[in-house]
This record gives sequence, structure tokens and C-alpha cells, in this order.
Amino acid sequence: MKNLNLGFSSDNTAGAHPKIMNAIVEANLGYSKAYGEDDFCKASDAAFQKIFGEDIDTCLALSGTGANVLALRAMLRPWQGVICTEMAHINTEESGAPEACIGSKMLPVTSINGKMKPSDIDMYLADKDSLHRSSPAVVSITQSTEKGTLYSLEEIQNICSYAHQNNLLVHMDGARISNACVALDIDIKTMTKDAGVDVLSLGGAKNGLVFGEAIVFFNRTLSHDYATMRKQSLQLISKMRFIAAQFIEYFKNDLWLENARYANNMAQYLAEELSSIKSIQIQKPEANAVFVTMTNTAMQTLMEKYYCYETDPNEVRLMCSFATQKSEIDDLVQYMKKIAS
Amino acid sequence: MKNLNLGFSSDNTAGAHPKIMNAIVEANLGYSKAYGEDDFCKASDAAFQKIFGEDIDTCLALSGTGANVLALRAMLRPWQGVICTEMAHINTEESGAPEACIGSKMLPVTSINGKMKPSDIDMYLADKDSLHRSSPAVVSITQSTEKGTLYSLEEIQNICSYAHQNNLLVHMDGARISNACVALDIDIKTMTKDAGVDVLSLGGAKNGLVFGEAIVFFNRTLSHDYATMRKQSLQLISKMRFIAAQFIEYFKNDLWLENARYANNMAQYLAEELSSIKSIQIQKPEANAVFVTMTNTAMQTLMEKYYCYETDPNEVRLMCSFATQKSEIDDLVQYMKKIAS
Amino acid sequence: MKNLNLGFSSDNTAGAHPKIMNAIVEANLGYSKAYGEDDFCKASDAAFQKIFGEDIDTCLALSGTGANVLALRAMLRPWQGVICTEMAHINTEESGAPEACIGSKMLPVTSINGKMKPSDIDMYLADKDSLHRSSPAVVSITQSTEKGTLYSLEEIQNICSYAHQNNLLVHMDGARISNACVALDIDIKTMTKDAGVDVLSLGGAKNGLVFGEAIVFFNRTLSHDYATMRKQSLQLISKMRFIAAQFIEYFKNDLWLENARYANNMAQYLAEELSSIKSIQIQKPEANAVFVTMTNTAMQTLMEKYYCYETDPNEVRLMCSFATQKSEIDDLVQYMKKIAS
Amino acid sequence: MKNLNLGFSSDNTAGAHPKIMNAIVEANLGYSKAYGEDDFCKASDAAFQKIFGEDIDTCLALSGTGANVLALRAMLRPWQGVICTEMAHINTEESGAPEACIGSKMLPVTSINGKMKPSDIDMYLADKDSLHRSSPAVVSITQSTEKGTLYSLEEIQNICSYAHQNNLLVHMDGARISNACVALDIDIKTMTKDAGVDVLSLGGAKNGLVFGEAIVFFNRTLSHDYATMRKQSLQLISKMRFIAAQFIEYFKNDLWLENARYANNMAQYLAEELSSIKSIQIQKPEANAVFVTMTNTAMQTLMEKYYCYETDPNEVRLMCSFATQKSEIDDLVQYMKKIAS
Repeated sequence: MKNLNLGFSSDNTAGAHPKIMNAIVEANLGYSKAYGEDDFCKASDAAFQKIFGEDIDTCLALSGTGANVLALRAMLRPWQGVICTEMAHINTEESGAPEACIGSKMLPVTSINGKMKPSDIDMYLADKDSLHRSSPAVVSITQSTEKGTLYSLEEIQNICSYAHQNNLLVHMDGARISNACVALDIDIKTMTKDAGVDVLSLGGAKNGLVFGEAIVFFNRTLSHDYATMRKQSLQLISKMRFIAAQFIEYFKNDLWLENARYANNMAQYLAEELSSIKSIQIQKPEANAVFVTMTNTAMQTLMEKYYCYETDPNEVRLMCSFATQKSEIDDLVQYMKKIAS
Repeated sequence: MKNLNLGFSSDNTAGAHPKIMNAIVEANLGYSKAYGEDDFCKASDAAFQKIFGEDIDTCLALSGTGANVLALRAMLRPWQGVICTEMAHINTEESGAPEACIGSKMLPVTSINGKMKPSDIDMYLADKDSLHRSSPAVVSITQSTEKGTLYSLEEIQNICSYAHQNNLLVHMDGARISNACVALDIDIKTMTKDAGVDVLSLGGAKNGLVFGEAIVFFNRTLSHDYATMRKQSLQLISKMRFIAAQFIEYFKNDLWLENARYANNMAQYLAEELSSIKSIQIQKPEANAVFVTMTNTAMQTLMEKYYCYETDPNEVRLMCSFATQKSEIDDLVQYMKKIAS
Repeated sequence: MKNLNLGFSSDNTAGAHPKIMNAIVEANLGYSKAYGEDDFCKASDAAFQKIFGEDIDTCLALSGTGANVLALRAMLRPWQGVICTEMAHINTEESGAPEACIGSKMLPVTSINGKMKPSDIDMYLADKDSLHRSSPAVVSITQSTEKGTLYSLEEIQNICSYAHQNNLLVHMDGARISNACVALDIDIKTMTKDAGVDVLSLGGAKNGLVFGEAIVFFNRTLSHDYATMRKQSLQLISKMRFIAAQFIEYFKNDLWLENARYANNMAQYLAEELSSIKSIQIQKPEANAVFVTMTNTAMQTLMEKYYCYETDPNEVRLMCSFATQKSEIDDLVQYMKKIAS
Repeated sequence: MKNLNLGFSSDNTAGAHPKIMNAIVEANLGYSKAYGEDDFCKASDAAFQKIFGEDIDTCLALSGTGANVLALRAMLRPWQGVICTEMAHINTEESGAPEACIGSKMLPVTSINGKMKPSDIDMYLADKDSLHRSSPAVVSITQSTEKGTLYSLEEIQNICSYAHQNNLLVHMDGARISNACVALDIDIKTMTKDAGVDVLSLGGAKNGLVFGEAIVFFNRTLSHDYATMRKQSLQLISKMRFIAAQFIEYFKNDLWLENARYANNMAQYLAEELSSIKSIQIQKPEANAVFVTMTNTAMQTLMEKYYCYETDPNEVRLMCSFATQKSEIDDLVQYMKKIAS
């Protein structure tokens, strides 16, 4: 495993953005109240309010799974379920944490290109009246999706509208929402709160933070007593200032958008460069992921040098981040050409 | 609340030790595998093994509550309970996380000076044969205790021995074990593994880390599949290298002991300086906490300037850390003298 | 263990009242819809409404622990806690089911004669604002209590009133509420709904049913989707008509009160007969339990012939039920006299 | 809904078999120890041992969902998952009880005719080494299946063998195992314990009991402390003798097989009689369920008079039980003929 190139395996193999690291170092001066009651946390709250409006509640969390579980825990009773795609991160990549921490059942629908449609909800609606089935209560969508695709603004609005018509709440897993905002050139408030999303998991670690995610409650009937819930959910550290300081920097001068834009551009560049190789197929990247189809033999050779996420025996995901260097892409493309020939 | 002095309210109001912060900054170079499979984590594991021997498993976690819950979750089935003191952190300060995350019941015994005795276990032993009661399976002790006191080595050995005789496992909440080690001048392996402890929560954040705790499994029959359990328990971030790098530095050149020794010494100094004030009573500090009894009026005046942890209407806890300055203690003592007169 | 007399060990060692058994036999004719949607269940609902008024919801359950857990599960989020006495059945006799099934923490207060006072709540009120503590949300009282004592109507009203003033809900564990109603000569609606109780666990099995308990929701904001919750809580059998039929008979011609009155009278008789024995002390029975203090030697001799519930090394609980025969009491008293002499 | 015929909607719309009811009535004499420690329970245990051998543990439970959850709870840690078909009762009909009560994730495979094959397991095997996925630990199969089909003995053996090779345990949901035994003419011990099943949920309520199911542990390393687990799982009533007495009668003179044989024969008769109707398709019944495909219009007309379980907009399930009368079948067939023409 020595000397494997890790740069394209995920957007979390990079470290933190230097400005973020600097914010942490600067936050290290003096004493602060513990457990989220410090001035950094207050300033972070204000930064979120500047973006989303004052009528929200923000809850900082430690991990991506933690943010999703906290969001859903606030939205659900244990006998209620979550409609999501079969490949949703909450359904497949979180070790059953939603089930174990909330008690709730994930109710999968079959996605097309990682996305669901409003009408996919229908198959679970009758379960609201059945005592034998988990009562559907939340629709959760991922933006950008696990397949690197994007919901258009209209698609989000339609899902929210249809969900609300059917007394369902909407959660958005925004682990990579920054990449979606720049790709679609849509303001984050428009894409979430204004579109009808009730609760957003807003990612940080995949876009340049050391660690830290945020749950943003647009529907404030859901955020009651979230501080106690957060501690009980193991998502509170004593020195929360170190997360808050990162988010303050993240939003200052739009670093979050800058990082995401850079990552998306790198993915575009990677896809273009790879497109000249005839023996492989490139899924045109919508955000910062490039999915490449190739023979399994080619993939094995690729994996000898690059540590990648195999999404299928013939498909690999190449991920770009704020840290991806053009030269790394050029090296990768050159290696791929060698494999292909 | 403005300008309140926060330095004595807990050992987690300080930031991180500069060397720890530096380790984080240095860990930020280049790519690393995500989710704990990186080289920093391997080196951190080796550092723990150097201290405790090779026949252990280490599981890094995010928060103190997280470490305790992970440790207990590995040790317990949900219908089994944990014998602990009535004031144990797991019983009173973790928002019911052990109950919610494990399903287990805390089985409190009345402590004397924050400590339990082997015979305190007896009241729950019969419950092993009762289907109506949570089956006691673990004894959890805190070292140093929530009252700032210490179990002697012999006391730990006796509890472990008695617990094992009765088919109970032993967990140690070592959020402040560093302070105990230097106070008793006992090697940590002697105090834990060799004394019979099965699983240790080893604290970091209260002794100079940004964040991060460790669960050390001496009884390796309990650590099976802990990586999946950790993710399901929301205690995994993608960039685990940033916790591992802290622990590597923490153990290098005994920084952890140096920090703890400094904090303990400051507590000694604080207690000595306060002891000349006749209207207050000082509990002689055993580790880094100074408990002070005074009139409620005096306490209110103290709290106007110092943000402190009120353990009782007439008792306040003053905590020292690696960051406590002698001049801060002198200021505090002067203020206390003014109040007292 | 052969030939031990079991009659006084609890009010659930008796079988079912003949009329109840007959109701089960009669309910066995023909087909019924499964899972609580049958005509017996509708008639049972109506029977509860006749007693408590139409503005209630009733949820039949399988066991006493099940009824308590369902009631509390409807009232609580997992990070909220239940204030109860240290000896409450939910705290000590249900294998940690409330913790495991709900996630909630039991918050014990020290009882006097099995009872709590409104002011006992105070010690937990500050925890509502602490993120480190389980948020108190429910006060649960047992009527008649685990010590065989009774809350007066005024005491119940005061607890409810004080709880509601502090935004706490009130649950009553009425496993033996029938005995309380006849002992105090107070109508059950007056003692529960009108006094301010939000949710009642109404017992059946200890007063002549084969099995079956009921949760009565006076606060109907809490009963939303209880049918799904009940199934998820393992408290639904397919042939619910067999529970419903028992409750219809239970309430018809006041069989429940008749059974309870008989049991209470037997307890009175037992206490009176025992009171002549000088070497033992009798706690005057308020409902159907007689607590007797004696030397441990005497108790061991008693237990050679009678299977009893030892509440203390020197105290035994003797329980009477609808099935207790006067001759059984006479035999017991005679044996006790022999022991005593 | 008045006067709807309920007889074919499920095998649990019937009451109890008269002999079973009689056993309950007879068990009502005198006192018995509560909570499963009575002589009926001992005799019931012996009855199970007579069938399965002495090296087993039996745990009586209250409901079918309860039995499945208890069985799986004993077999699983919360971060482990259960491989089952997408239509398994535990996956779709139990309100998410396995997820909520155990924390575990159901891992569905696509069934053919309600059945899975050993190789279906493969897709989850790699998850054993992934910390991001629920660790597969149990394979659960239903016999007879939710589609009324049967696993052959060889198929069961192959699944068990393949599961064990891969360190997975095997659970069998035998809510209708009696019907399977008589249909295949295979002894129940041969079909379960000898075939490699680790834990069996053995159904009662669908084959003539008032209520009551049993968990049979063939792998006794899994049954440790099940009595406490059962109480914590809300599957214990005080008067367990009333369940035990039913099972004693159930096994006496093979009543369970007689009931199942009768039900299966009725299903055969129903299928044959319906087969002459050309506009509908009959799935040849393997046990006691008859699945009928017809136009949706025909189905609506059927449902005007018969309350049935619609498994699909064009498919209905007709269930026979020990109580089904030939005349009821004749009436139904006549009505179907009228609809068809």
C-alpha cells in the first residue's frame, strides 16, 4: 500500500485549507467557555444567520454521520421512517447509525443517477395509515448526490412541495452542498430554506475543514432542546470554539465557495483530459466527482498506483478537492493513457 | 457575563498546548487515507502500545462522553448495567447518553469523597439472578474522581479483583488519569492494565488537546469490530490523522505527564494560598481540583468575577490546567481575600 | 420449592377471575379482524370512554412493563427524563426497559413511604436548562405505591399542578389503581383525568385478568400514531379481541372494583389477625398489601412454607388478591403465631 | 365494513382451537409462580425438549414480532445486520421494531417467490470488513415464506452451511413452520436444528393459539441471560402459565401438526376449486396460502364481500387456517365464479 496516490480517492483525504488551519491556531488564545457557550460559537451562529436569515437555529456537530443523525433525530420519532434513495449515504455508508441512534427505518426508493423524483414517495404514502409499517415522516435528499449529480432548483422545490403536501418533512444531506451551489450558480439560501427544505446538514470536512459539520434548522419547531440532544448524541466536544472558528473563516470572504469552485473546476479539467482516452467512458461531472467506466483489468492497474473508490467492478470515482493540483491530474491522465494503450 | 474570568471553571476552558497545536499544523501536509486508516493512526497505535504493551487495542474517539459510551457499549449488552457512584460523570453529566446509546442502566452506589469501595458492589450482585433487574456487568470508576480525589493503587486492585471474582468487568473513566498518575507517582500501565482494569477511557481534551480521547482495551475479547461500532456511535471523523497526531505528540517526551504535573502543582499552590483565608474551607487537593467551601454570599460575589462550577450552594470547584498562570492564581486569591474580609 | 404456598407472594400468582375467563371463552367464536381493528376492541374503547369521557384515547397493551414503557415512550424524547421515586417499579423492576426502549433516564427522588412530594421535583428543575443533564419532562407516580401506600386526591392534584406549572407532564403507574379507588372511595376519573394526570397505565393482570393492561391518554396530543408505536414496541398481538373482551367484562357491573374491594378487605383482615402477634410489626394496609417486620430468623421460617416477596432482610410483603380465601389467611396467621412463639 | 367475510384474510382472524382454549381454562386453577417460574412453564420447556432434544433453550414470548426481535436481539450487537429478503416480515411488517429494539439494520436481498439463495448473501460479505457498513452477522429466512412458498430441506441446509462458512448465524422465522412441516412431510427437528438453524421463532398464534410464540435456541451460546432480555424487551407477562399451557396442549397428540395439515388441505381444496375459473390465475399453494391474480375490477368486487390482503393491485392472498370450513370455501368459490363471469 506504500506510495499509493491518495489524492483522488475522496475530498476528505486532503488536509485542511491553510486559512482554516490558521483560524484554529488563532482561536487557541486564552480561555473560552466550554461546551458551545463561547464567543466563537456566538459569532459562528451569526455567520450562519447572515447567510440564511435570522429565523434559523444552527447546531454545530463533529462528523458527517453525526450531522445527519442529529438532523434526523430532531425530525423523527423512532416509529417514523425516512424516504431516501437506495444509495443515500444515510442508507449505506453510516454503519446503520440512523437505525441505531434514532430507531428509525430507512425507506429506500430506486434512484436514477443518484436522484429521486417526487412520485417516488408515493409507494410509501399508504404506510402512514398502516400500523405494521414504519410511518414515513421525512424525505431526505443528498445535494450533490452520491453519484456526483445535482438536483436542479426546480427539482428540489418540487420534492419539498410534494413532501409537504403529504405531511412529510424534508432533510437535505449537504455534505457537498458547496459544490452544488457553485455548479448551479444558485445561492445556498435559495437552494435550501427558500426551496422548502426543513433541515440541512451542511458539510465542512469535505471542503477544507479539519473537522466539523453544521445542522441548520429552517423549521424551528424541530430544534427545541437540540443542545441536550447533541450532547446525548455524542456530538459535543468541550472546546467547540475550534469548530466555530473554522466555520467563521469558512464563510468569511466566501472561502467555502472558492474551495468548491476550485474543486469543481479541477473535476471539469480531469474529465476533459480523460475524455480523449477512447477505451474508457467518462460521466460528465456536475460537481467535483468524475465517474469513469473502464475494463476491470484497466481498473486493477489503476488501483496499483491510485487508491480509489470502486463504485462498481467497472466503475471508479475520482474526486477533486480544494487541494487537487493540476499537475496531479496531468500525472493521473498520463498514467491512464498508458493503461489504456 | 462579559469579562468573567473563565480560567478556573474547568480544565477544558484552556485552549490546546502549543506543541499539540503545532502537531496539528504539521499533520496538515499532503493527503492521508480517511477514516482512521492513515499512517498517523498507525503511529498513534504504536505509541499506545509502547506505553501499555502490544497486547492491547486502541480506539480513538472524539469526545469524553463518546469515549465512555464506546467503552461501555463494547462491554455491555443492553440488559446489563453499570455499577458506578451516584456522582459518576456517566451517571450525571452525559445527558443520559449511556442509557440512550447502549440501552443500559446506571446502577449508582453512594460514594464517599467521590469514591466507591468493593463492598458497595454487593447491593447489586443478587440482581444477576433476577430477571426483573438490569444485570450488573460492569463496574466503572473515575480516576481522578469527580470530587478531585484519587483511588490508591491498592484500592483499584481491590475493586478489580472483587469485580472479577463476581464476573463483572471494570471500566475506568480516565478523563483526568494523567493527573492521577503524577499525583500518585504511579505508572499508567501499573494503575490500569496491571491493576485489572479491562477498558480505559483515556482523556486528552482536559489535559491540553484540541479534542480527542482514547479507549484502550486491555481485555481484547471486548474490542471485536470496534471500528464499525465507533462509526455507528458517531465517533469517527474522516480526517482522524488530526486526532492521532495530537496523541503522538501528547506521549512524545511525556508531554501528557508534564502538563498534568503542572496543573496539579498549580492546584497545590492555589490551595496553599487560599488556606490562609479563615472564612473559607479548602479540601486539600489530590490532583488538579480545589474544592472550596464558603458562605453562599461569598460565593455569589466570587461568581461576579469568576465563572466557576458550583458543586453545592456552599461549595465551588476551582480547576487548574496546563495553562493556569501563577499570576491568575494570585489575582484570584487576592479577590477571595477581599471577599472574605 | 415443592408445596410452597404462593398465594401471598403477589396479586399475580392467582389466575384469572372466572368471569374474565368466561369472557375469553365467549370471545372465541367466529372470525375477528386482527391487530386491534375488531369489534371487541371498539367496544372496549367505548367502555373506557364511558368511564373517562369521550375525549380520551385508549391503547391496550400486553404487560405492565409494556404499558408503562408505551405510556412514557409517547410522552418523551430520548434526551428527556422521568422523575420518579427511587423505588418506582419503572426504576427498579423493569430490567431497564424504559432506558432501553425509550433511551430516557429515570431521575429518582427519595420517597417517604413510597411516595414523593411536589417539592421533590425541584432538585431536577435546573436540569431543564443544562445540556449535560437529561431534561426532566415527566413526573411518574405509582398509585397505590410500591410500599402499598396511597396518594390522597389532594396529593395527586398538587403533584399534577406543580408539574404542569413547571412544564412537566404527569404519568400515573396504575398497576393497582383499582385498589386505590376503592380504598379512598374516589372515582377513577376524579383521581386521574380530573386531577391532572396526562397518561395513565391502568392495570389488569394484578386484579383478575389473564393478561392485559391499558394506557389511557387524557392528553391527546400525546397519542398521535400510537398504534404504530405499539406494534414497534412489541405490544401488539394479532388476536387483540382476547384482551378487549377481558376489559369489557372487567368494567361491566364494576367487576374491577368488586375484585379490588375484596382484595383490600382481605388485606385488612390479614393485618388485623396478625396484629395480635407481639413479636412482629404490621404496617397498617392502605390497599391490598400488608408489610410485616420481623426477625430474620422468623422470616426464614415463614419462607419455608410461604413463597413471599422479601422487601428487606427484616420485612416481607404479603399481598392479597380477588382470589385470596379467608381460610388461607387463617392458616397463614396460625403459622405465624407458631413461628412467633 | 359490516358483514365482510374475514375468514380468508389471514390465519389469525380465527380464534383459538377449542382444545387450546380448554387448556387455558384448566390452567386457571390455583396459584402459580409469576413471571415464567411456574410448573406449566417447566412442563412446556420439557415439551420443547421432547421435540428438539435436551440441548436447547426455549423462551416463550408474547407476539410474533416479539419472538423475532428477541431471537435477533440475542444474536446481534447493534452494529451488526440481518440479511433477509426484501419482503421478509422483519423487513416490512414489523414497524421497524428490529431497527428500534436492536439498533440493527435489515440487509435485504431480492427474493424469487419469496425465497433467497445462498449466493444472495455474497453481496454483503465484503461489508464485514467495512467500518462504514452494518456488519452482516445473521441470515434470516422465513419458512413457509411470505409468498406462501417453501424452502426444501436441502435449500435450508445449503443456506445454513454457506452462512456458517462465512461466520454468519441463521435465524428462521417460523411463524408458519407447522404448515411447512406437514407440507414437506419433514420432522421439525430435521428442518431446523439438524439443518443448521441457530435460533428458531416458532409460531403459535397463526395455528390455533390465543397468543404466544416461542424462541428455540439450538445454539445455546446465544441464550445467556435471555430471561432478563425478555423482560426488558416487553415480552414477559406475569401469568406466563397461560402461554405455557397452550404450548403443552399444542404439542400434545400433535395438535399443531393436525391444525396445520387441515389448513394446508383447505388451501389445496380452495386452489383446486378456483382453478376452473379461467379469468383468474392461481399460484399453486405450497402451504396454507393461495395467491390469486385477477383484474383489479374483479378484485374490487371480491373485496366488497371479503376482507382480504391485497399483495398487489392484481393479486390477493387467501389464507386458510385450522378453522376454515369447506362451506366457506364453497361460498367464496361461487362468489368468485359470479365475479368472473
